[in-house]
Amino acid sequence: MVPLPTMQWLDGCLRLLDQRQLPSEEIFIDCGDIDSLADAIKTLAVRGAPAIGIAAAFGAVIAALTSDQGEEFDDAFHSKIDILEGTRPTAVNLFHCLEIQRDIFRRNPGRENAVRALLESAKGMVRSDLEASRQMGCFGADLLKSGSTVLTHCNAGGLATAGLGTALAVIYEAWDRNLLVKVYADETRPLLQGARLTAWELSRAGIPVDVLPDSAAASLLRKGEVDAVIVGSDRIAANGDAANKIGTYPLALAASAHGVPFYVVAPLSTFDISTPCGSEIEIEQRGRDELAHLGGRKLLPAAAGVWNPAFDVTPATLITGIVCEKGVLFSPDTESVHSVLGRS
Amino acid sequence: MVPLPTMQWLDGCLRLLDQRQLPSEEIFIDCGDIDSLADAIKTLAVRGAPAIGIAAAFGAVIAALTSDQGEEFDDAFHSKIDILEGTRPTAVNLFHCLEIQRDIFRRNPGRENAVRALLESAKGMVRSDLEASRQMGCFGADLLKSGSTVLTHCNAGGLATAGLGTALAVIYEAWDRNLLVKVYADETRPLLQGARLTAWELSRAGIPVDVLPDSAAASLLRKGEVDAVIVGSDRIAANGDAANKIGTYPLALAASAHGVPFYVVAPLSTFDISTPCGSEIEIEQRGRDELAHLGGRKLLPAAAGVWNPAFDVTPATLITGIVCEKGVLFSPDTESVHSVLGRS
Repeated sequence: MVPLPTMQWLDGCLRLLDQRQLPSEEIFIDCGDIDSLADAIKTLAVRGAPAIGIAAAFGAVIAALTSDQGEEFDDAFHSKIDILEGTRPTAVNLFHCLEIQRDIFRRNPGRENAVRALLESAKGMVRSDLEASRQMGCFGADLLKSGSTVLTHCNAGGLATAGLGTALAVIYEAWDRNLLVKVYADETRPLLQGARLTAWELSRAGIPVDVLPDSAAASLLRKGEVDAVIVGSDRIAANGDAANKIGTYPLALAASAHGVPFYVVAPLSTFDISTPCGSEIEIEQRGRDELAHLGGRKLLPAAAGVWNPAFDVTPATLITGIVCEKGVLFSPDTESVHSVLGRS
Repeated sequence: MVPLPTMQWLDGCLRLLDQRQLPSEEIFIDCGDIDSLADAIKTLAVRGAPAIGIAAAFGAVIAALTSDQGEEFDDAFHSKIDILEGTRPTAVNLFHCLEIQRDIFRRNPGRENAVRALLESAKGMVRSDLEASRQMGCFGADLLKSGSTVLTHCNAGGLATAGLGTALAVIYEAWDRNLLVKVYADETRPLLQGARLTAWELSRAGIPVDVLPDSAAASLLRKGEVDAVIVGSDRIAANGDAANKIGTYPLALAASAHGVPFYVVAPLSTFDISTPCGSEIEIEQRGRDELAHLGGRKLLPAAAGVWNPAFDVTPATLITGIVCEKGVLFSPDTESVHSVLGRS
């Protein structure tokens, strides 16, 4: 599997594959300042917990490059990092990666030093992410038997990471091992990452994929046509509760009702030990427009409101196993989460 | 509550409020022949189990009016009814109403006689449907306490019936009794009947409504902000299993997981005693286009397939009660369904 060109560092700017335009057009946007990068993250030109974290880490390089040297340098850098931190509240990778970069910045005084160290760190994150994807792919594929059909939600693929994916890394590896018959992909309202991005990624890799409305997944599971549900995560609390794209929780309920294993695939950078359980995870609310319009056509009367949370939380009790780069945490709980993080 | 102008009989043709154009435009289409009416049903210009049944009953009048008198008259009539019967497989009301009309046709020989009797029958169905809605509204509202917030799926309102609704008849009555604080409406992919039709109906009646992605309903139920889930049905099997718009079953699973009562509201014409249980109900598969395009924009790569069932089946065990015009069947089962039908 060749990594997708989700993001590339060009001299002084981050080039992003604009995921808002997929699959109609493969357009790249160059972010050379913090505002354009923050906007790209907020509007989901780049999305997916690991990808957001790494893009923000490159953003720290941009923050140092675009801050004037002198007395105000540190303050200017940190206020730019604040802007990046304010883009999206749920994915913990964003905060993890920026905290690492703030620390590196403090330990490398002077712009030239800082830029060099921050860039090295961001590039290291890309390498680690790709390596973690390969490892998760192997551990996850070990869970599948020959002739498997899997169901996934949203996009936890190369587009959501440095290029290989979390849930889709498992699917790519299973496909390479000839274990996989077919993938079902929830279309994932409201922004349709399943239809637009996952179907695009999988078709590109030659993997058979059928797209279904999110609300049809329970019927599919009842039909017995799915051997495993495999999803990513944006933040995993210390007790194993996992936040992921809205619609993951009802999928876990349906999988549980029909005895289908439910796997969450996420690197250790997605674990947030400081959040004891899922109810403590801040859930981003998205705007009215995502539900009120459809391809320019107005759907909702002016008087109608919307409730549009970007994520939900699946309790650890509904998760068969969390696949990370260190292995699989079956029936995850506070003890096993602490244990795997202790090993990292 | 004033009935919506879902359908009106004009001399020799059926005028339908074109639900494909709502809420942007309130356009009426006149169907004066079977092909245009069959197309209106297939493409959801008119939809909702009771509305389809009544529209088809008027279609029988059109079938008689547009068939040449003479030797071939009966065959011409019945082959037009066959066309109407072939439009949509899941809603049982279509078959019920057409069976009644075929029977009336047989008992009233000659075109003039037939037209008169068929028209009287269709108009009687409109009156019965409106009366059933009023009764279901009362029985259903009796289940709600003051200050209630309810969640509904798809559109089971005036647009889905002769003008007052099933699930929404309960909501209208509860609103009139000052029992209701707010309604949450699932947007209902892929054709967005919740966003386009239910939000339009409720806003028109001055009832506060928030629209949410179907996949967010489980999180809303977990938050404890919903006092009851109220939906319609397209066919209820003899054991109480209820087919309804895709997404109803996962809603019932989530309601059950969070102890929220789950009510199905449907007139007796929706019960199908000849179908012993839900797994025997034929589920209509809809086309690829509903998932592959969004407002003219292409979403799916050519290689991607779709799985697009229009309905799912909620097992009776997940249904708190079925509200019909005779009362409420709590914990419905074969015995109580037979009993209520025996009383009709």
